[in-house]
Amino acid sequence: MPIDVIIREVGPRDGLQLVKKFMNTDTKLDWITQQVRTGFKEIEVTSFVPPKLMPQFSDAEEVIHASNNLSRFTASALAVNLKGGVRALQAGTSVVNFVLSASESHSQSNARISTEAAIQVCYELIDWQKQNAPNSKIAVAIATSFGCPLQGTVDEYQVSKIAAQLAEAGPAEITLADTVGYANPSQVKRIFKAVAAEVQDVPLVAHFHDTRGLGLANVVAALDSGVQKFDASLAGLGGCPFAPGASGNIATEDTVNMCETMGLRTGIDLYALMQLRKRFSLWLPDEALEGRMIKAGISSTFTQTRSRVHSI
Amino acid sequence: MPIDVIIREVGPRDGLQLVKKFMNTDTKLDWITQQVRTGFKEIEVTSFVPPKLMPQFSDAEEVIHASNNLSRFTASALAVNLKGGVRALQAGTSVVNFVLSASESHSQSNARISTEAAIQVCYELIDWQKQNAPNSKIAVAIATSFGCPLQGTVDEYQVSKIAAQLAEAGPAEITLADTVGYANPSQVKRIFKAVAAEVQDVPLVAHFHDTRGLGLANVVAALDSGVQKFDASLAGLGGCPFAPGASGNIATEDTVNMCETMGLRTGIDLYALMQLRKRFSLWLPDEALEGRMIKAGISSTFTQTRSRVHSI
Repeated sequence: MPIDVIIREVGPRDGLQLVKKFMNTDTKLDWITQQVRTGFKEIEVTSFVPPKLMPQFSDAEEVIHASNNLSRFTASALAVNLKGGVRALQAGTSVVNFVLSASESHSQSNARISTEAAIQVCYELIDWQKQNAPNSKIAVAIATSFGCPLQGTVDEYQVSKIAAQLAEAGPAEITLADTVGYANPSQVKRIFKAVAAEVQDVPLVAHFHDTRGLGLANVVAALDSGVQKFDASLAGLGGCPFAPGASGNIATEDTVNMCETMGLRTGIDLYALMQLRKRFSLWLPDEALEGRMIKAGISSTFTQTRSRVHSI
Repeated sequence: MPIDVIIREVGPRDGLQLVKKFMNTDTKLDWITQQVRTGFKEIEVTSFVPPKLMPQFSDAEEVIHASNNLSRFTASALAVNLKGGVRALQAGTSVVNFVLSASESHSQSNARISTEAAIQVCYELIDWQKQNAPNSKIAVAIATSFGCPLQGTVDEYQVSKIAAQLAEAGPAEITLADTVGYANPSQVKRIFKAVAAEVQDVPLVAHFHDTRGLGLANVVAALDSGVQKFDASLAGLGGCPFAPGASGNIATEDTVNMCETMGLRTGIDLYALMQLRKRFSLWLPDEALEGRMIKAGISSTFTQTRSRVHSI
């Protein structure tokens, strides 16, 4: 039996985060709908941050409502504080990904709060969800788990300790995020193994950027450590405000291609996804899009790993 | 003690192979000299193919002679038939990389000879070397070891069988080459492990292209299988005549960065290499150059793994 891996699309959130021009709501929903049709089980569709700070996500409620009307997938959304998390739950978000940062400097700069205080906020949000939105789930992402653009190195023991504290609150899953592309395969294996030992049965997710071309190599290292869920962004959309010239997330289409050629079952129809990838370029004519598959095409030897979940 | 890995630069051969405009000999030698100064122990500097077929390498003898005058590195060269191999040895090449193809179709199309006959030529070349150039070495590369642009899939057992036959002749090393970027990490582990079991103590080398972005992921998989020597091309130079739009070899600078951040010791000064990489763009203004490092720069957290071999 082939191993199942889940690729979570984060383009409509992490990808659009740095796109200055507002993508209109209909286009966002068109994108999400088409991508669900290719077989995606989860898409992070928006971010509940103050609209004044990020006008790109001023339609968060509308995007969540419309996404919830699509069947066969989970629409998740990001939040960085209690207010955003509650707003996401009140809008009916099934899975809220609460993000805090392992780096003290990044936490202060990004959320104006210490890491320790952010962990307490996560506890409060989970409490709020249990009482007021029992059908929703809270997941947590630890940003800068592999390095920080502000302070540089992040203590590996610190990452494990934070994960252990978070695990006690019972989140749906914990994502270790390489926010700006510092991770290397040896470090990925080391940290994921250490964290897995701390969090018991909480599933782990890997979020890699491809800043220095190590994104897919890090996916392989995480797979070797037992991780089976990965964030990726269509066309590798999304840069980093702290690293000019740096590229964004690992490209979804490249990640699906790698997993499928390795015999891992993503449930995603790569041919359909490449059709969407071509249309995607037309929606964002001003953005520098990444990914190798768009240039090289699907290999003549490619065979889709047989999936239980077919594209719909 | 950190593990040593050897990165062999193949840009002046595999990279230039598809560059139509002749790079003048002085520029080639300037490139080679500067790259040796950054710490490279081996560079494949040219190809002994008929000058009429590939005018880019019409200066093969001159490049070998001048390279042999540089100290602290091995200048190797490629050959695809007996005539080329003998010509390379007569020119004083220290290591001749004889290439044959695991794919019958590719072998016929590329060298107009069956794979079996090419293995016999390799035997003859090694005999000739032993008798006439005892200070030189013959290494072998098996092209299309992971897939073929003409016939598609290549039988994995066939690759092991060819490697076993070649090992009997006692080559300096055997390279498994992913000629046009078909390899995936699972396959890389499987094939390298199978071949290692067949060739006893003949060292194995990995040669990957980055066609669909899997190049560095394949390096990690090969490292996991015990491989410690890798081909790479500065700026990822070199495309593929069979796959328009496909990119070339894995980029040397990205590979060095990955290995060093993983704590593997390449002996290469990444800062000096990046300086060369910047000058390199000026030598080839008409070529599409690849590699992430040129865009993202060296990470603020980067520390060079301490090397026995320092840049000179």
